[in-house]
Amino acid sequence: MQDKCGVFGITLDSKDAALPVYYGLYALQHRGQESAGIATYDSSIHIERGMGLVHEVFDEHLLTHLKGSQGIGHVRYSTTGFSKLENCQPAVVNYRGGTIAIAHNGDIVNALDIRKTLEAEGRIFVSDSDTEVIAHLLVKELMKYDTITAIQELMNKLRGSYSLTLLLNDTVIGVRDPYGIKPLCIGKLDDGYALSSESAAIDTLGGELVRDVLPGEIVALKPDGFTSQRAAKKAITAHCMFEYVYFARPDSTMDGALIYEVRRKIGEVLAEGDVEADVVIPVPDSGIAFAIGYAQKSGLPYTEGLIKNRYVGRTFIMPGQDLRETAVRLKLNVIKKHVAGKRVIMIDDSIVRGTTSRKIVDMIRAAGAEEVHMRIGTPPIVSPCYLGIDMPTYGELIAARKSVDGVKLMIAVDSLKYITLAGLIDSIGLPREHLCLGCLTGMYPIEKPAERAMQLKLDAFANGVKKKDERVPVSPVSS
Amino acid sequence: MQDKCGVFGITLDSKDAALPVYYGLYALQHRGQESAGIATYDSSIHIERGMGLVHEVFDEHLLTHLKGSQGIGHVRYSTTGFSKLENCQPAVVNYRGGTIAIAHNGDIVNALDIRKTLEAEGRIFVSDSDTEVIAHLLVKELMKYDTITAIQELMNKLRGSYSLTLLLNDTVIGVRDPYGIKPLCIGKLDDGYALSSESAAIDTLGGELVRDVLPGEIVALKPDGFTSQRAAKKAITAHCMFEYVYFARPDSTMDGALIYEVRRKIGEVLAEGDVEADVVIPVPDSGIAFAIGYAQKSGLPYTEGLIKNRYVGRTFIMPGQDLRETAVRLKLNVIKKHVAGKRVIMIDDSIVRGTTSRKIVDMIRAAGAEEVHMRIGTPPIVSPCYLGIDMPTYGELIAARKSVDGVKLMIAVDSLKYITLAGLIDSIGLPREHLCLGCLTGMYPIEKPAERAMQLKLDAFANGVKKKDERVPVSPVSS
Amino acid sequence: MQDKCGVFGITLDSKDAALPVYYGLYALQHRGQESAGIATYDSSIHIERGMGLVHEVFDEHLLTHLKGSQGIGHVRYSTTGFSKLENCQPAVVNYRGGTIAIAHNGDIVNALDIRKTLEAEGRIFVSDSDTEVIAHLLVKELMKYDTITAIQELMNKLRGSYSLTLLLNDTVIGVRDPYGIKPLCIGKLDDGYALSSESAAIDTLGGELVRDVLPGEIVALKPDGFTSQRAAKKAITAHCMFEYVYFARPDSTMDGALIYEVRRKIGEVLAEGDVEADVVIPVPDSGIAFAIGYAQKSGLPYTEGLIKNRYVGRTFIMPGQDLRETAVRLKLNVIKKHVAGKRVIMIDDSIVRGTTSRKIVDMIRAAGAEEVHMRIGTPPIVSPCYLGIDMPTYGELIAARKSVDGVKLMIAVDSLKYITLAGLIDSIGLPREHLCLGCLTGMYPIEKPAERAMQLKLDAFANGVKKKDERVPVSPVSS
Amino acid sequence: MQDKCGVFGITLDSKDAALPVYYGLYALQHRGQESAGIATYDSSIHIERGMGLVHEVFDEHLLTHLKGSQGIGHVRYSTTGFSKLENCQPAVVNYRGGTIAIAHNGDIVNALDIRKTLEAEGRIFVSDSDTEVIAHLLVKELMKYDTITAIQELMNKLRGSYSLTLLLNDTVIGVRDPYGIKPLCIGKLDDGYALSSESAAIDTLGGELVRDVLPGEIVALKPDGFTSQRAAKKAITAHCMFEYVYFARPDSTMDGALIYEVRRKIGEVLAEGDVEADVVIPVPDSGIAFAIGYAQKSGLPYTEGLIKNRYVGRTFIMPGQDLRETAVRLKLNVIKKHVAGKRVIMIDDSIVRGTTSRKIVDMIRAAGAEEVHMRIGTPPIVSPCYLGIDMPTYGELIAARKSVDGVKLMIAVDSLKYITLAGLIDSIGLPREHLCLGCLTGMYPIEKPAERAMQLKLDAFANGVKKKDERVPVSPVSS
Repeated sequence: MQDKCGVFGITLDSKDAALPVYYGLYALQHRGQESAGIATYDSSIHIERGMGLVHEVFDEHLLTHLKGSQGIGHVRYSTTGFSKLENCQPAVVNYRGGTIAIAHNGDIVNALDIRKTLEAEGRIFVSDSDTEVIAHLLVKELMKYDTITAIQELMNKLRGSYSLTLLLNDTVIGVRDPYGIKPLCIGKLDDGYALSSESAAIDTLGGELVRDVLPGEIVALKPDGFTSQRAAKKAITAHCMFEYVYFARPDSTMDGALIYEVRRKIGEVLAEGDVEADVVIPVPDSGIAFAIGYAQKSGLPYTEGLIKNRYVGRTFIMPGQDLRETAVRLKLNVIKKHVAGKRVIMIDDSIVRGTTSRKIVDMIRAAGAEEVHMRIGTPPIVSPCYLGIDMPTYGELIAARKSVDGVKLMIAVDSLKYITLAGLIDSIGLPREHLCLGCLTGMYPIEKPAERAMQLKLDAFANGVKKKDERVPVSPVSS
Repeated sequence: MQDKCGVFGITLDSKDAALPVYYGLYALQHRGQESAGIATYDSSIHIERGMGLVHEVFDEHLLTHLKGSQGIGHVRYSTTGFSKLENCQPAVVNYRGGTIAIAHNGDIVNALDIRKTLEAEGRIFVSDSDTEVIAHLLVKELMKYDTITAIQELMNKLRGSYSLTLLLNDTVIGVRDPYGIKPLCIGKLDDGYALSSESAAIDTLGGELVRDVLPGEIVALKPDGFTSQRAAKKAITAHCMFEYVYFARPDSTMDGALIYEVRRKIGEVLAEGDVEADVVIPVPDSGIAFAIGYAQKSGLPYTEGLIKNRYVGRTFIMPGQDLRETAVRLKLNVIKKHVAGKRVIMIDDSIVRGTTSRKIVDMIRAAGAEEVHMRIGTPPIVSPCYLGIDMPTYGELIAARKSVDGVKLMIAVDSLKYITLAGLIDSIGLPREHLCLGCLTGMYPIEKPAERAMQLKLDAFANGVKKKDERVPVSPVSS
Repeated sequence: MQDKCGVFGITLDSKDAALPVYYGLYALQHRGQESAGIATYDSSIHIERGMGLVHEVFDEHLLTHLKGSQGIGHVRYSTTGFSKLENCQPAVVNYRGGTIAIAHNGDIVNALDIRKTLEAEGRIFVSDSDTEVIAHLLVKELMKYDTITAIQELMNKLRGSYSLTLLLNDTVIGVRDPYGIKPLCIGKLDDGYALSSESAAIDTLGGELVRDVLPGEIVALKPDGFTSQRAAKKAITAHCMFEYVYFARPDSTMDGALIYEVRRKIGEVLAEGDVEADVVIPVPDSGIAFAIGYAQKSGLPYTEGLIKNRYVGRTFIMPGQDLRETAVRLKLNVIKKHVAGKRVIMIDDSIVRGTTSRKIVDMIRAAGAEEVHMRIGTPPIVSPCYLGIDMPTYGELIAARKSVDGVKLMIAVDSLKYITLAGLIDSIGLPREHLCLGCLTGMYPIEKPAERAMQLKLDAFANGVKKKDERVPVSPVSS
Repeated sequence: MQDKCGVFGITLDSKDAALPVYYGLYALQHRGQESAGIATYDSSIHIERGMGLVHEVFDEHLLTHLKGSQGIGHVRYSTTGFSKLENCQPAVVNYRGGTIAIAHNGDIVNALDIRKTLEAEGRIFVSDSDTEVIAHLLVKELMKYDTITAIQELMNKLRGSYSLTLLLNDTVIGVRDPYGIKPLCIGKLDDGYALSSESAAIDTLGGELVRDVLPGEIVALKPDGFTSQRAAKKAITAHCMFEYVYFARPDSTMDGALIYEVRRKIGEVLAEGDVEADVVIPVPDSGIAFAIGYAQKSGLPYTEGLIKNRYVGRTFIMPGQDLRETAVRLKLNVIKKHVAGKRVIMIDDSIVRGTTSRKIVDMIRAAGAEEVHMRIGTPPIVSPCYLGIDMPTYGELIAARKSVDGVKLMIAVDSLKYITLAGLIDSIGLPREHLCLGCLTGMYPIEKPAERAMQLKLDAFANGVKKKDERVPVSPVSS
C-alpha cells in the first residue's frame, strides 16, 4: 500500500511563502515521494515542479525565485495519472480571471464522466489527471459565479475524496470534500496561516494547529485569519480509517484524534485477554506505537527484535533471486538474542498480501523464537479502496480470499489476531458513522463506480507511461 | 538572430516512425537547439519531449517505446513561450474525438486576441504558447466540422505564420499558412511519405522531395500518397526571405530554389563592378556560398582567411572580460598569411548589431590586411520580424539607426556594400510579390499588431522563466 | 560526530562476489555515506568506485561487470583525505607481483612520517590517503617477504587503528591492528566466507558470525574456510568504546558483546537511584535502546515523545535563519501530549557540542514538560579522537570546556547525568584494559602525535578540496 | 583515425592561469574529446579533471578555484590507457621535492619495459598510462639530479614520442622528444609565455608564436621569457607527417610550415596533369584545403557538393541498420545540382578502411555524377602507427591489403590517385629525413617493439574498462 498525496498552503504577512511551503512539504514527504511542486503568487503565479523527493526537486536557487507571500505545495504518489512530469502538481491554469494553481489529495470517482461531458463541450485535456478535470470544472463555474459559489458548485459536481489547496491569484483556499475523507487542517503561524494535510507540518513550522477543515468546508486564508463557508450539499462524514492506522505521521492530530494515541490504544485493545508470551516486538516502523500500547497493557517487555536499515528504500535486487526474501533481509535484521527461546508477540499495522509477513515470521523463527503470535492493528482488508489509497486488487488482498485461519496458515504463525472493527472504532474515538471503513466492510460512503469505468480510467494513458527505472524496488515490509 | 523551429511528420507502411522522425529532426537541428520532441500513434499517442539537442533528448530506449507507423516531431528555439519543459513541442491534447499532437513553426500574430476570446468562453490554458491556442481553436472547430473543414476554419481564424505538422489520431497532416511564410515540403520515402521544414531532412532519409506544401494547403499523408486541400481564403504569397540568406541549410530546396544557388548568385551579384581586391574570404560558415559566388564571378581567389573552431558554441566566457572579443577569438582565428598585405573582400550573410563584424574586421586588420571591403548578402535590416524570427528590437538593429556610411564607419571597413533589394530578389528567383521582405522594408504581409499586445505577450510568463544556465553564451559571429 | 568507514570482503565457491559485497556494503551504509567502492578478482582486478550512497554508485550494469568470486568493498566517510573521487576506496595498485586492492577503516597515526620516509626513497604519491601509504609499505615488504610475513612487517611499521580487507590477486585477506581498535569479524555464508566491519552485514547475507578477527590477526579467506596468523608484535587490546555507544548498528555483535544489550544495560545503570519522573523518552534513533533499558529498570513508561522525520538528512536550510533550530524542527517533532505536564527523563547517546541538545530541550519544554532530566549514555567527551573517529576539536567539545554543571546550565535541563566510566565499562562487559577510552580520559593506547604533525596532515591537500555542495547540511541531532 | 592528445602550459606575470589554459585547451579540442584537465600552482598544486569536452568538464566555479599564475592543461583521446577517469591528465604526483603535474602527448614505446623495471624495484602503479611511467622515472632522476639534468636523464631512458608540459611546483616546463615527433611550440602573450601543441591556441589567446620547441629541447617558462636546454643525446628529426595532412588545425604553423598551405600545395600537386573534369569537391571538412589548391591549380570550379551536418558527432544509429550508410547520410548530404551530369574530382585527406569512401562515392553517383575521380592528400597508409596515432591494425588498413587498383575497385571510382611520397614531402617543405613517414613506408625512426609487448600493453587493463556508452558512434567520414 502506498501513501497518497499531501497538500499544503500558506498566506503570510510579508515574507516569501516558498521556504515555509518547502518545509511543510518536507514534513509531509511520507505522503508522496514521487514528485513535488510549489506555486507562489507575486503579481503572477510562479511554479516549480519535478520528479523526486522535496529536497531533490528544490534547491536554494529555485526557492528564491518563487516570490510571493502566498503559496501552495504538493507531494505526490500517483494514484490516477501515471508517473510523468506532466502529471506533477500543483497544476496551473490560466483563464479569463487570472491564474489558478491546484494541489489535490484524493480520488474523484466521477472524473471520467465529467471529463467526457467537458470533452463533449469541446474542451481539451493535456493530462490524464483528476486535477485537470477539477481545473476545467472550477473555471467553468467561475465564469458564472463568484469564487465561493463557484467552489460550492464544483463540490456539487465532484464525487469522491478531495482535499484541495488552491491558489486563486493571490488567495489561498482550502477545500475538503463533504465526506471529509482525506484530511486537511488549519494552522496558525507567527505571521500568517497555513493549510496542511497533517498537523505535524504545522508543528515543523513552529505553528499551532487551529482545527481541521470541516467536511464540505471552504476556507480562505488571510495573513491575519481565515474565512469559512460550507458547501450547500450535506453529506455523511467518512474520515478515512487508514490514515489512523498507517498513513498519517504518529505525531499528527487528525479530526480530533492524536494518531499515536489511536495506535497505542489499538495495541492495548489487542492485549486484552491475549495469549501468554515473553516479549512484544513491533514490525518497524509502523508497528511501534501498537506494540508500545500492547506492552503497557500486557506488562510484557517492549522489545526491538527487528532492526530496520535506515538507508533502505531505493536499492534494487538482482533478477533471478528470491526477491522478497532478499528485500526483507536488506530492510530488516533480527536481534536473535531478543527472540531466541521466546514466545513472541509480533505486531504490524496491517496485512495486505501476506507475503512479506511470512518472510518476517520465518526470520523470527530461524532466530529461535519458540512461538510467534501475530497481532494486526487493522481488521482484515477485504475490499480495495477507490477513494484515494493505492491498494492491490481483490485478487491480491489475502483477506479477501482467505479466512483468518487461512491467513494464519499462510504466514505460518502460532496464532493470528486482528483488531476487531469495534476495537478499531473505539480506539479512533470517532462514531462509526463518521468513518470510511470501505476496505474493511465493502460498504463505501460513495457509490462504487462501474468496473468498466475504473478500468478505462486506469488504462487511458497506460501506453504513454515511460518506465524510467526498471529496478525492482524494495517493497514496504508491512504490505 | 536565432533559427526558428523545425517540424517533421511521417507516415509509413508498417515500420515504426520514431527512428526516421529522429533522423529527420537531426537533419533539422540547425532550426532549433533548445528542445526536441516526437509523438507517434499506435492505438494511442506516445509522446516524448525534452530540453536539449535531438541526440540528448532521445536514446534507443525512448525511441523503441515510441511505437506506431505515424509520427511527428519538432525542434525548437523559443520565440513566444519561454524556455520551459512545459513549452516543448509537439503539444498533445485529448478531446472528444481522440488525441491531437501539434508541431508548429511560426508566429501567430493574433494569438493573444484568440486566447482572450477563448478565455472569455471559459477555456483554460496551461502554457503561454501559440501552439496551445491552435489546439483549442482546432478542437473547437472539430466539434462542428469534419477534419479538413475544421482545419480550414482554423486557418481562417489564425493570422500569422505557421507551418504545422499534426497527428490527429492516426493521421499525419501538414498545414502551411496562406502566405506560405515558413517553409514546409513533402517527401517520398521507400515505404511512406514525409513532411519536413526542409528538403535536406528528406535527403537524409534517402527519400525524394516531391514538392513544397503550397501556401494555404492542407496535406494528409498516407503510406502510399497524400491528399491535398486548399483553405478557402486566398492570400498573397510571402515566403520568408531570411530562410534563403541565413536560416535554411544550403542543401535544401525551398519553394523551387536551391538555397545554395541563391547564396552563390547573391555573391555573383555583389561581385559585379566591385572594387579591385586580392582575395575573397567568407565569414564562416554562413558566408561561404556567397564568397564562392563572388570569387567565381570576380576571378579573385576564394580564400579561407578565418578558421572556425568546430567545438565552439556552448562555451562560456568569464565576466569582467571583453566578452565579445574573447567570444570571437574562441570561435574564429585568422590565417595571417592569407590576408597579410592583401586587399580583402570579406563576405557575411547579414549585419544585425554590427558589434561582431567590427571585431572580425579588427582581427583581419591586425593580421596585416591592407584593405577590408565588407560585402553583405542581405540588404540592411531595418525592422524587426514578428512573423517567426527571433530578431533584436529596433534599437539594436544597427541599420535601423545608421546609414550605410554610418555602419561602415562603425565596423571600420574601407568599403561596405549590401546586396540591393533588387539583387536579392533576382537571386532568389521568385517574384517580389511572393516574398516577405518585412525586415528589409518595414512592409509586412500581415498587419503589425499593436506594440502593447506584443509586449503583453512577451511579458506574460516572463516571471516564470527559470534561468538554468547563467553562463554567457558565445554569440553567433554573424549577428 | 561522523561514522567512519566500513569494510567488507568475501570469497565464494563459484558465484560472483559483487552482489553479496554490494548487499554487505548496503548493511554497512551507516558507517560511511560519502563514497562506495567494490573490487573483484577474475584473472585481473575489476574496480568500481564513486561518490554517494551504495545504491547511488552501483547499478545492475556495473555489478554484472564486476566478475569474480573474490571481492572486497568499502563505504567511506572521509577522515584523512578529503572528499574527492581520487580518495574513494578500495585503492588499487599494480606491482611486480600482480594487483592489490585495499579497503581501510581506521587512522594511521604515523602515516605522515612513513610517507616522508617513502618519499625520501624516491616514491611518489597520487593521493593524500593513509591507504596509499599502506599500499606502498605493503608492496615494499612483498618485495622481500612472502605475503603473510610482508603483512606482519607492514603491521610492525603502521601505528594507529586499522581494519583492512585486502584483495591480493585472488586472495581476500582481513587484517586488524594489534590493538583491535576498529572492528572486523568473520562470517560463514552458504558457499563461502566473509569479512565485515559488523556482524549485521553477515546477517543480511543470511550467514553466520564465526568470530571477530583478533587484535593483530591476519585472516585469509578460502571458499571453505580461512587461515589465521598473528602478527609477531604484541600489544594491549583497545577496542573503540564509541562503537558500542554510537557507531555500530544495535543488531551487531562486536568483540563478544551485542551492541543493543550494551546500550540497554547502560540505560539500566542510568536508572539506578535516579530522580522521580513520569516518562522516559529517547532522542531518536540513537537514544532508543538506552531509553528502553532505563524504562525497564525504572518501571517508568517508555514513551516516544520525539518523532523523527525519516526523510531528513540531505535537506538544506536557507542562510539567514536560525539554522540549528530549523534543522532540529525539520528532523524532530514533539508529541506534546506525551510530555505536557510530565516530568521527563530524556536519553541521548552523547553530548558533543551541546547546541542541538539545547534546542531539543527547548522544544520539550515548549510542549509543556514540567521537568526535563537529561541522561547520557556516554561519559563526558573531553578529548578528541585521532584513531578513527571524526570528532570536533577540543574547543568545540563542550565537556572539555565546562563542568557537568556548566553543561547542565547551557542545555537548560533540570538535571543532567552521564553514565559513569565504571558504569559504561560494566555495561560493555569487557575489561577496562581492553577498551580505548581516549576521548573520555585523554589517555590513548597509542602515543598522540605532535600537534604539528596532525596539522600538516590535515592541511596537506586542503587547498585541493572542491566543495561541490555549499548547502548547509542538517547536523545530526545527537552531536 | 583519431586525433591524439593536446597539451598546453602557461606562466603569467600575476593573473590566474586557469582561464587562459581553458581557452587554450578549447582551441586544441580537436586533438582530444574524451577528457580534459587543468593543473595550476599557487603554493600547492590544484587539479581538476573530468571526462568530456573542455566546456563540459569546466565551469566558472571550477576555474575560479584553480588559483595560481602557472598552469598546464591536457585534452585527451586515449591511445594507451583506457577510458577511465583515473587516466585523465594532467597526472599529479607528490614526491620528496614537492608536486609534479604532467601532461603528455605521444606514445612511449618502451613504457612496459620501464614499468617492469620499476615494479622490480618495488614501485607501485595506480593506472596503466604512460604518464605514470614518466612520473616515476622523472622522480627517480630528481632524487639524484637537478631538474634539468633529471629531465635529460628521463629523456635518455624514454623511447618513443612525447611532447610534455610539466608543472614542477611553480615552474612550467615543456619537453619535446629528440625526434620531435609530436608538435610543441612556444608563444608570447601580453603578460607571460605559453607552450602549446599548436600555434592556433596561441592565436586564440591573442599571443604570438615565438618558435617551435626543438627536438630534444627542454624549455622552462618564466613570465618574461624562457630558458632552453638541449638533451645530451642526439637523434634524427622525425616530425609526424600526419599532423600536416589531417590532425593539426589548418590555421596552425608547425615546425615552420603553415598547415593550410601544405594542404593547398598538395592539392596543387594532385592537379598536375590530372584528368579532365568539371568540378572539384572536397569531402568536408578535412578535404577543403586540398580541394581549394586543386581548383586553383586546375582552373576547375571549387564546389561544395557535400554539406556536413554541423550537429553530427554524437548521435547513435539503431542496431539492425546499415550502420555506415545511415551514419554517412546523417553526416553528409549531396547537393545534387552540383554534381549531376558532372565529371567530379573528389578530394579527401586519406583512405583508411575505405568503407566510408565507398558510401560517399555511391551518394555522389546516385546524385547523377557522370564520373567520380578520387584524389587523396596522403600516400597509401600501409603500416600502423605506434608513435602516437590511434590507427587501425594492418588487417583493417585497406592499402596494406590492396593495390591502388584494388582500392579503386573497392570504392568504385572512375579513377583514384594518391599524392606521391615525393609530392607530399615537397608540399610539407621539410627534408624527407626530418619526417616520420612510418605509416607510409613501414620504416620508423624508432625500432618497432615486439608484437607481444604491444599486445600486453593493450590488454593490460582491458578488463577494467567500463563501457559507459554502448551507442554506436558516427564514424568520421574520412576514415
